[in-house]
Amino acid sequence: MTTFKKWGVVDHVLNLENSIIREILKLSSQPGIISFAGGLPAPEMFPETDLREAANQAFEKYHHNCLQYSFSMGVPELRQELANYCSARIPEIRPENILVTSGSQQGLDLVARAFIDPGDYIICEQPTYVGALQSFNFFQARYATVEMDDDGMIVDQVEEALKRYNPKFIYVVPNFQNPSGITMSLQRRLELIDLANKYNLPIIDDNPYGELRYEGEDVTGLRALGGDTVISLSTFSKIVAPGFRIAWLIAPEDMMPVFERVKQCSDLHSNTFGQMVLLEYLRSGKLPGHLDLIRQTYGARRDLMVKAIDEYFPDEVTYVKPDGGLFLWATLPVGMSGKDLLAKAIEAKVAYVYGSPFFANGGGERTFRLNFSNASDEQIVEGIKRLGNIIKENM
Amino acid sequence: MTTFKKWGVVDHVLNLENSIIREILKLSSQPGIISFAGGLPAPEMFPETDLREAANQAFEKYHHNCLQYSFSMGVPELRQELANYCSARIPEIRPENILVTSGSQQGLDLVARAFIDPGDYIICEQPTYVGALQSFNFFQARYATVEMDDDGMIVDQVEEALKRYNPKFIYVVPNFQNPSGITMSLQRRLELIDLANKYNLPIIDDNPYGELRYEGEDVTGLRALGGDTVISLSTFSKIVAPGFRIAWLIAPEDMMPVFERVKQCSDLHSNTFGQMVLLEYLRSGKLPGHLDLIRQTYGARRDLMVKAIDEYFPDEVTYVKPDGGLFLWATLPVGMSGKDLLAKAIEAKVAYVYGSPFFANGGGERTFRLNFSNASDEQIVEGIKRLGNIIKENM
Repeated sequence: MTTFKKWGVVDHVLNLENSIIREILKLSSQPGIISFAGGLPAPEMFPETDLREAANQAFEKYHHNCLQYSFSMGVPELRQELANYCSARIPEIRPENILVTSGSQQGLDLVARAFIDPGDYIICEQPTYVGALQSFNFFQARYATVEMDDDGMIVDQVEEALKRYNPKFIYVVPNFQNPSGITMSLQRRLELIDLANKYNLPIIDDNPYGELRYEGEDVTGLRALGGDTVISLSTFSKIVAPGFRIAWLIAPEDMMPVFERVKQCSDLHSNTFGQMVLLEYLRSGKLPGHLDLIRQTYGARRDLMVKAIDEYFPDEVTYVKPDGGLFLWATLPVGMSGKDLLAKAIEAKVAYVYGSPFFANGGGERTFRLNFSNASDEQIVEGIKRLGNIIKENM
Repeated sequence: MTTFKKWGVVDHVLNLENSIIREILKLSSQPGIISFAGGLPAPEMFPETDLREAANQAFEKYHHNCLQYSFSMGVPELRQELANYCSARIPEIRPENILVTSGSQQGLDLVARAFIDPGDYIICEQPTYVGALQSFNFFQARYATVEMDDDGMIVDQVEEALKRYNPKFIYVVPNFQNPSGITMSLQRRLELIDLANKYNLPIIDDNPYGELRYEGEDVTGLRALGGDTVISLSTFSKIVAPGFRIAWLIAPEDMMPVFERVKQCSDLHSNTFGQMVLLEYLRSGKLPGHLDLIRQTYGARRDLMVKAIDEYFPDEVTYVKPDGGLFLWATLPVGMSGKDLLAKAIEAKVAYVYGSPFFANGGGERTFRLNFSNASDEQIVEGIKRLGNIIKENM
């Protein structure tokens, strides 16, 4: 008998599943495999030189203050700078609305800690972000899932769920959703906010990709539309670099004492040094130009993947061409399984993530997700070609 | 009605108390106040130049890898280097026993998440570290407290508590305890391990100060004595700098999949950049010399505070002279209250933390804690003089 079974580890922790994505990532890290499985930003696009400059500026300007303990809410100067930065999209935002988190994953965890008692319901999209499910599952949430179409979550289904399940919050990824790539329309956003107001519950707006649009017009964000009805999660991970684990939660000011206490229990505060580096990077004024560059690069990779799919996948495979973000979502012909096909794809040295883990209540067996941000042009064409062959061979 | 009351925040979160220490820190940050309230390492002692060099090395050697996502268990090279570093004190340690955490506070949270169901009992010292109580309180732990004497937790009281409360683990701060400054004797450590083995539960060995000994001989650590019976928490916060939020949890290898999953739910992984900086700092070989320096400095500050207390405090105040760590623990004469006295101390421009929050089940009204690491010689003498006067005036 192993040590931890002998000890009193709580049942719901023993029952937590290992992240299937992390398992697939291990598989797909074998040499020679072309992987569309991860969700990583392209490392060659990190503004390495500018971040090194910002790190040296942090030492130069703040000395030991960038190495000392700091506030649970975040470094005050960073909260101010983030408020300035976000004000282009969220006119009403103030530093008092911002809590710095250790990555958006911690934002999800803080929301879960604040709202979820075991058995509580959450409304979420079907499919939805699997990392959010991980955080919510720890607190033994249950899910009322709502289907999506090209305009995002089908809000007509939400009111029924609100009446039936008395959920704690509505969780959405409204922009270039992970995994589906779908963006919620303005009309749907307004309808969802109306419902949240009517039923007195918050919308959790998970928004890591909002600034990564490659075509079309921005849709006004949920926090800008809904104000204090909305708790938003944003992060530097996809627009600058994930390695500092610095993200931020935007919430009503009167909710902040709750999040502050929960943050204190979790890790006291997010790392001071990373906050200072990103403060200096924001102040350098280089982020807008950098965003243009990654939009160009990722947009071109998306276009190339779409072109390769049109060339190499059989017509029976359908897919969503996303206007932004990192992912392309596809559906296999009836009778096929994304999970079963993966073993064969790995044999052919190409990897993806199959879709079923993104369905909180099961389903999605024919779906799979392709990441286009972290592969070279050659890898995209060759990988899609291999995958197309595998699909054709197994139809 | 405020937003969050209208929303469904869980009851036990609404009931969480604000950190009293954080409240006192706000009070004591007024200009002109000499504060012995915090637990901060001295910022002028941070190896700023060497850390800046390490940060530049991290960019130079790892490029975009120090900016990318990393493993939930921690950067492999750092886990290896930590195993090497710890092997001087823990002969059997391997990288597989090490999980990098976002500060020791997260280590406490991960332990709480893994073991505590609402209402579960924990055995802890009386007094004990208030930050641990915060993490454990979130999961609605109850406490079986065990008194301390000069040799630490009185282990004779532990078996009764084990039988009566069926606790999930035994939490101890065995070296220069925060707040009492007491170090657990070798004999007590061995007895405690025997009991933990007999009753099949882990000892949580919270050890941020173990390397900060200013006099006497090291006592062999709990993990070295007890092996896989012990889960240890160590941190760079007190020996290098807290601003990177990099610490580590040492646990049995077969327990690691549990902690890995719980870590994934919490924040995916600790910040890559800070891990790389501390990896390079460890590899530079400068930590042992730096430790000598801070031991000298903090040891001299402790001596000065003891000397000032002997000169300025009335004889009726008793105190523990610690062999290391950051804190000196004192007890007021019968009839006085550490809490009541604080208001008067703040008026006289000197601050401390009163002792009652460190008592999980109440008590300790006469006690208070003084930090000696983060004050200049002049501040120590003047602050203790002011405090002595306040005590005499209120006896």
